[in-house]
Amino acid sequence: MRIDSVKSSQVKQVTALQKKPKCRKEQRAFVVEGLKMVLEAPAERLLGVYASDSFLSQNGAERLEGIPFTEVSDQAFKAMTDTQTPQGVLAVVKAMDWKKEDFQGKEGALLLFLENLQDPGNLGTIFRAGEGAGVTGILMSRETVDAYNPKVVRSTMGSIYRVPFAVCDNLEETLKVCKEAGVTSYAAHLGGEKNYEEADYSTPSAFLIGNEAAGLSEKFSSFADFFIKIPMAGSVESLNAAVAASVLMYEAARQRRHK
Amino acid sequence: MRIDSVKSSQVKQVTALQKKPKCRKEQRAFVVEGLKMVLEAPAERLLGVYASDSFLSQNGAERLEGIPFTEVSDQAFKAMTDTQTPQGVLAVVKAMDWKKEDFQGKEGALLLFLENLQDPGNLGTIFRAGEGAGVTGILMSRETVDAYNPKVVRSTMGSIYRVPFAVCDNLEETLKVCKEAGVTSYAAHLGGEKNYEEADYSTPSAFLIGNEAAGLSEKFSSFADFFIKIPMAGSVESLNAAVAASVLMYEAARQRRHK
Repeated sequence: MRIDSVKSSQVKQVTALQKKPKCRKEQRAFVVEGLKMVLEAPAERLLGVYASDSFLSQNGAERLEGIPFTEVSDQAFKAMTDTQTPQGVLAVVKAMDWKKEDFQGKEGALLLFLENLQDPGNLGTIFRAGEGAGVTGILMSRETVDAYNPKVVRSTMGSIYRVPFAVCDNLEETLKVCKEAGVTSYAAHLGGEKNYEEADYSTPSAFLIGNEAAGLSEKFSSFADFFIKIPMAGSVESLNAAVAASVLMYEAARQRRHK
Repeated sequence: MRIDSVKSSQVKQVTALQKKPKCRKEQRAFVVEGLKMVLEAPAERLLGVYASDSFLSQNGAERLEGIPFTEVSDQAFKAMTDTQTPQGVLAVVKAMDWKKEDFQGKEGALLLFLENLQDPGNLGTIFRAGEGAGVTGILMSRETVDAYNPKVVRSTMGSIYRVPFAVCDNLEETLKVCKEAGVTSYAAHLGGEKNYEEADYSTPSAFLIGNEAAGLSEKFSSFADFFIKIPMAGSVESLNAAVAASVLMYEAARQRRHK
């Protein structure tokens, strides 16, 4: 099969998935770009793979390791891609479906609660660093940027396939359920009483991270068991949300290695 | 004084400073945008402040706290700004000039050596987190993205004024000089023998951070005293450069608080 025209229905479908969160939600699918992202996708989730003429002439079809794909003219591919310098291969992937048990982890939950994060790069970076630190799940408020936004997906570098996550209608309620199941929760907050390294994260733990500009809301942070602070030297008022999350997650990982 | 035309020489000068690294280098100046960045700039470094008609009618001149400024038509301001949703106020700032002594710090040097970092957001985030962690200086290879690039400046959130930094013609040579002065150096490397938290950063220390795609070059990392690794769970191959730098800097800060 081959697509030549930018007016092809498949081109239109991919473009809609790239641009419209609503469309991703309705179709329970998202787009990934680049050879690495396509090859790392769970095979049973691949709904369609598209390779441009340029990609195929430069790399050869064997680079796709036997995955069935559709050839696309460069012009049509240009309409499908979200990137300025496309790699020439992309896939439509079925949305992940994580179950409650997936969030528990083998050595105790290590959860992130994200309240209204807006920057796609930050969210993607949090997935990537989160997988590296051994986070067992990411829970997001409805107002958080869509995890299947193409910029988020790109900056996860593949962690989008592997870190369990959920969008919560009521983040407070979800936190409450976790607390009842034995998870201790820590709000990263300028008004934290103790430094983050003074808490013990070796038991099931959750970090609450707020919006880039507004931080954590008073309401949501009031549900946390403890307020912790990341000390800041100089005149720094706050850290980038992905940096703050990474420092906390890696401190938890450090403690768990040494317990 | 007032600027109405996009053809004004000052509009052209600001635009050139925004877009051309060479121009910033020749004029030893850079552009900052937004009220916070303008107000935080060291007063003696302000070479010119520009406020748009919209900014002035919405905020009033008193928001500029007595800093002399030039009124600019919205149209002319649009030509000067680097942002898509400009705040309506920007300044031309004289480049910082740090001296060797500035890099030593009161409690011992904590340095970052950046080899060929390319992403402006990463570099800016490293400045911001670096100031927060108490880094005493950032040393960059000539091929690293320009620290005065508007995107870098924006994401430093003001740390560009406060963290000593230098661009080095020969990063190895600079590292050698630091080592002779008693600084122990650590290369963040996938092949690191020990986990990063197993080293002692309470004495003068330097972290070597590599390019986003290629990591540290073999040549440069061979100058490090130790290779350290940040353990990564799951299938993560590397961390974002700003995340890796932040995890290391904050571990050093943690150790220094507890020594």
